[in-house]
Parts: sequence; structure tokens; C-alpha cells
Amino acid sequence: MSEISADLDAVTAANTELYAAIESGDVERVAAMWDDADDVVCVHPGWPPVRGRSHVLRSWAVIMANTAYIQFFPTGADVGIDGDVAIVTCEHGLLARTDEKDTGFGETARVVASNVFRRRGDGWRLWSHHASPVLGGDDQEGTEAER
Amino acid sequence: MSEISADLDAVTAANTELYAAIESGDVERVAAMWDDADDVVCVHPGWPPVRGRSHVLRSWAVIMANTAYIQFFPTGADVGIDGDVAIVTCEHGLLARTDEKDTGFGETARVVASNVFRRRGDGWRLWSHHASPVLGGDDQEGTEAER
Repeated sequence: MSEISADLDAVTAANTELYAAIESGDVERVAAMWDDADDVVCVHPGWPPVRGRSHVLRSWAVIMANTAYIQFFPTGADVGIDGDVAIVTCEHGLLARTDEKDTGFGETARVVASNVFRRRGDGWRLWSHHASPVLGGDDQEGTEAER
Repeated sequence: MSEISADLDAVTAANTELYAAIESGDVERVAAMWDDADDVVCVHPGWPPVRGRSHVLRSWAVIMANTAYIQFFPTGADVGIDGDVAIVTCEHGLLARTDEKDTGFGETARVVASNVFRRRGDGWRLWSHHASPVLGGDDQEGTEAER
């Protein structure tokens, strides 16, 4: 396997693990994906940026504590690697329930995320995560044509 | 001036120029900020990702052709540099008018962007731009506390 191909596989695996970790509800597993550095930054959908490892991890703990169920359906991902930095831009359908007593299907949404990873001794770790809602509808035909 | 301080100044200037270019309505000036590479990627607020230099520049041309007036009010920015890659996470208040005949103040919004720059021979160029709306309101007190 070429070096480039191995890097692509490793970054893709790190990105897949991030979403599996969120789905699992295990905050420690999400924390393990973040770089152990103070310059990490995270933008949750609709949120202003959260900066610094301790603040970022606390924001995930709050979100995960208030999410009874979440599942991601990947609909597209693109990986760009330049030296020791990689950007994964990925889209997901999302199914989430905030109320455990809710027996319905919960809320659905379409989200896009830019995940910037840095290469560390033990693998690729998140430097930045920016997620935001994708607004659907016929008024986005121009957008679809760009894809 | 130290090398780190000079890099910080150069990245901050590139980020400032990006928003001045958008405000100017000059597509060529916005194009000059983007890296001349096919792995660039851009997420406009509410949009799915647009990938590749030609598609990204076309999306800006479409947006700028449909924006009569736009002005950004920076409310916060943070720069992280690691070698030849920099991430600027910045917030803006935004005032925009899509209709030239509109004599009112237009629409206001609050946006957050993650701008990833790469160092090139002639300066720092955009590798990725991800912008999204910040949803305000009292229900985001937890978020504000994280900042």
C-alpha cells in the first residue's frame, strides 16, 4: 500500500470513529479523538465556536447528556491531506431524539461538517470540527449543480 | 518581530482581506484569496460543500451577483497556526441586502466561519472555508458560558 493510500485510510478511519463515538454516547471515546492541545476549536450546529480542549470536551458532554439517541447516515465524504494536516468534509443525514420517553422517530436533519485532523505519534487527532445544518429545498438547485 | 508574531499578523491580514474582498463585490479579489488547487472546499451558510477551485469560485460569483450589499462586523477571531497551515475561527455580525431597490437596512444575521489557510510562496491562501449561522437566544446560555 502506498504512503498516500495508507494516510487516506487512516484519516477516513479516524473520521468514521468520530461519528461512531458520538453515536455510542461515550464521552471518553469522543475525547480520545480530540488532540491534546489548547488550540482545538469546535463549532456545533447553530453554536458559536468553543475553544480549548477542556471547553470543547465539556460542550460534548453537555450535548451527549441531552441526547437520548443519535444516528448518522453518511451521504458523502471527501478527504484532503497536506503533510501532517487533513481536512475531511462530510455530509450526514441525522436522526436524533432528545427525550428518552419519546417513542417516535425523533428529529431528522442534514448536516455538513469540516473536520480538520493533525497527525500525531499515535494517529490522527481533531484540531477543528465545524458542523452546520444543510437547508434543503428547491431553492438550492444552484447549489446542487455545483456539487 | 518574531517569526510566530509575523505569521500571526500575515494570517490575520489574509483573513481580513477575505471579508473586505467579499464586501467589495469583486469576485477576482475573492478568487485571489483561494489556493490555486483542486482540493479546496467551501461551505456557505446552509449549503452542502462545494469542492474544487472552479466550482468554489463559481459559487462565490453566484452569491455575489445576487447580493446588492453586504457588510461584516467582526465580533471575535482566533488564529491557530501549525507549521504551514492556519485555522482562523471568526464570528461576524452581517448586514446584507439582496434587492438593490430595497431602501431598508436589509437582513441581519450572526455567522461563524472556520477558515483554513495554507502557506504558499506568495502568502497564505484558503484551503477551506466553512461558514454557518449562529442561532441566538436565551437557550444558548450554556454555549455562552463555554466561550
